[in-house]
Amino acid sequence: MPVNFTSTARENLLPIQGISLGVTEANIKKPGRKDLLVVALESPAAISAVFTQNRFCAAPVIVAREHLACAQPIRALVVNTGNANAGTGADGLIRAREVCRELSALIACAPQQVLPFSTGVIMEPLPLEKITAGLPACVNHLGKADWFDAAQAIMTTDIVPKAFSKQVTIAGQIATITGIAKGSGMIHPNMATLLGFIATDAMVTPDVLQAMLHHAVAYSFNCITVDGDTSTNDACVLIATGQGGARVSSASGDDYIALRDAVTEVATWLAQAIVRDGEGATKFITIHIEGGKSEAECRTIAYAIAHSPLVKTAFFASDPNLGRILAAIGYAGIDDLDVSKIQMYLGDVLVAEKGGRAASYREQEGQRVMKESEIVVRVALNRGAACATVWTCDFSYDYVKINAEYRS
Amino acid sequence: MPVNFTSTARENLLPIQGISLGVTEANIKKPGRKDLLVVALESPAAISAVFTQNRFCAAPVIVAREHLACAQPIRALVVNTGNANAGTGADGLIRAREVCRELSALIACAPQQVLPFSTGVIMEPLPLEKITAGLPACVNHLGKADWFDAAQAIMTTDIVPKAFSKQVTIAGQIATITGIAKGSGMIHPNMATLLGFIATDAMVTPDVLQAMLHHAVAYSFNCITVDGDTSTNDACVLIATGQGGARVSSASGDDYIALRDAVTEVATWLAQAIVRDGEGATKFITIHIEGGKSEAECRTIAYAIAHSPLVKTAFFASDPNLGRILAAIGYAGIDDLDVSKIQMYLGDVLVAEKGGRAASYREQEGQRVMKESEIVVRVALNRGAACATVWTCDFSYDYVKINAEYRS
Repeated sequence: MPVNFTSTARENLLPIQGISLGVTEANIKKPGRKDLLVVALESPAAISAVFTQNRFCAAPVIVAREHLACAQPIRALVVNTGNANAGTGADGLIRAREVCRELSALIACAPQQVLPFSTGVIMEPLPLEKITAGLPACVNHLGKADWFDAAQAIMTTDIVPKAFSKQVTIAGQIATITGIAKGSGMIHPNMATLLGFIATDAMVTPDVLQAMLHHAVAYSFNCITVDGDTSTNDACVLIATGQGGARVSSASGDDYIALRDAVTEVATWLAQAIVRDGEGATKFITIHIEGGKSEAECRTIAYAIAHSPLVKTAFFASDPNLGRILAAIGYAGIDDLDVSKIQMYLGDVLVAEKGGRAASYREQEGQRVMKESEIVVRVALNRGAACATVWTCDFSYDYVKINAEYRS
Repeated sequence: MPVNFTSTARENLLPIQGISLGVTEANIKKPGRKDLLVVALESPAAISAVFTQNRFCAAPVIVAREHLACAQPIRALVVNTGNANAGTGADGLIRAREVCRELSALIACAPQQVLPFSTGVIMEPLPLEKITAGLPACVNHLGKADWFDAAQAIMTTDIVPKAFSKQVTIAGQIATITGIAKGSGMIHPNMATLLGFIATDAMVTPDVLQAMLHHAVAYSFNCITVDGDTSTNDACVLIATGQGGARVSSASGDDYIALRDAVTEVATWLAQAIVRDGEGATKFITIHIEGGKSEAECRTIAYAIAHSPLVKTAFFASDPNLGRILAAIGYAGIDDLDVSKIQMYLGDVLVAEKGGRAASYREQEGQRVMKESEIVVRVALNRGAACATVWTCDFSYDYVKINAEYRS
């Protein structure tokens, strides 16, 4: 089960004025589950998106980028799970475009006003006929589904749906933000996550929205890793419908910061939820590197620790095998790192300094922290003022099991 | 059990004139096993070494580098398993030097003429008293142990000892080469491997020996990975006793190439043996990238595939989930990679081209190759003439089990 994770209750998820949702069971991979979602934007909304940096990016990523570049108002998003339409070459592009065309005909807009998203198995043909057969039911369902349904409809190996709402007051007006995300394996986002959709009823100009999304993603989805594999399909979308009373028209000032931080909080909740529901996860681990020369070097070291299978299996075993963390710091590739200056803490316990085990360290203290399900590793480099935080999970038998059996 | 691995029989391991070996049971971590090795050089020999690039390099690595820099003839190597003496700060250095001092007193040389090596658990104090208590027995045993004993005495989680001999004729004279190595986890050597010791009776000048070792390591130990973790203790040593009749005095020409290639063959056999005995390994996987712009980019892509937990679990499951390999190629970080030009083969089967699944590909063909215990993944980038090969293994339940229980 996910680590210390309680789904946001359906009744606590707030609708976003200007957005209607529809889901259906299209039998894409398995019968009897919601696997197709349409997000309809009732009137022109501002929309911003970031996508995977994987060179083998999926067909829907390519098509979504093209459609955003057309600068026509986006009218709908269509998301399927069960098949990623990635590594599918020219035929994959044809199928992604056909999905947009079918939906556009049903809702009376141009195909370029639809953004497609897919997640699931890679390198198998998208079952186009199942999706087009399911789209009319999805469109008929618009307005009847809520964000909880939407979060369920995009799950793959996720155990729990991930959705979160927040309200913030901007110049006396309430802005509502609701976001959903999916992801459990192949998680090492690079400029985006697997799939995240966040919407607000605030009115935000497109360039301001883009700056806001980049900030939110940089401190949320881009700070997590489950297995170090960057997906072909990562995408995160931020929609501002402008149907509420709040308005933000500049990428600076108190109003911007208030909305930006609220959006970032939603994104962070979703990103951490992905780690808590990481494939086979039994522990949620925060890795905080401080006192670095740059944020980049702090991140590099944090990811070296977070990606080490040896560190992750030690967390799984609740074994304070701290030398593995030191080894990861040492091979992170920071050439002029002076290891004798580094202090490492496990929770509140100083475990290493002066290039070795701290004199005050007792194994039972490390053992106590390692047995907890939420663990903070803090490393002070003592060479600068920069810091970075990365969230990850441990590496268990179930990770191997889930991924060995994924396609069966 | 190791993948398709048969230990070289004790009687096929050739002694190297000028070197005598002694081992003992010093009870360093567990009783009843050989865990201390002394390699004595009877007369001045040429010696060359490469060490880990990990910034948290172990105390014995620091001391061995210092002693090599003294330029006095090296008289002995001392190797213990059960404790890595890494992440042990200033106290670790004192203990490593004390081991050298104790041995030097026993064999009547200066402490700087001894090189120390340690492998085992990190960040625990080296049990100096056990090692010094064991050294006299080791020295008394000199000349009675063979290379098979030596290979056994340096094992940690290795299931099998790894040793290999080869002979090559240089200008009518036979040169004999014997090497041993250990390593099973924390395997992603960077300029060296865990521990490898190779000796020849040829006479080789020191600068030529250094060039030979760098070549041999670059195409053997530096081409393997088990888990992507670079150890704190990696070291590989090449010794030339000069006691045989063969002579190489230039780093070019037929004689040099003949001996270099023979040394590289021994190193490659040992490196592949480490992968075959990789923690939890059930398959031996060769990843060959060709048609790249540079050897560096081919290696980067090969390692992205070899390090992906998703790819490795798919190999474990014999599942031709080829999209995971494409995804790893895509996130390897080669910015201008044109994925539509790439061809990927699994064994003899063309599985992907033109950015997607090859038209001729049939799942049962991929399945057939994936069920084998030796698998070759070949990727043609079709953008240049460079190539690189990396060897790795799959990722099984047993990898998690071995590393979760390592210290217990």
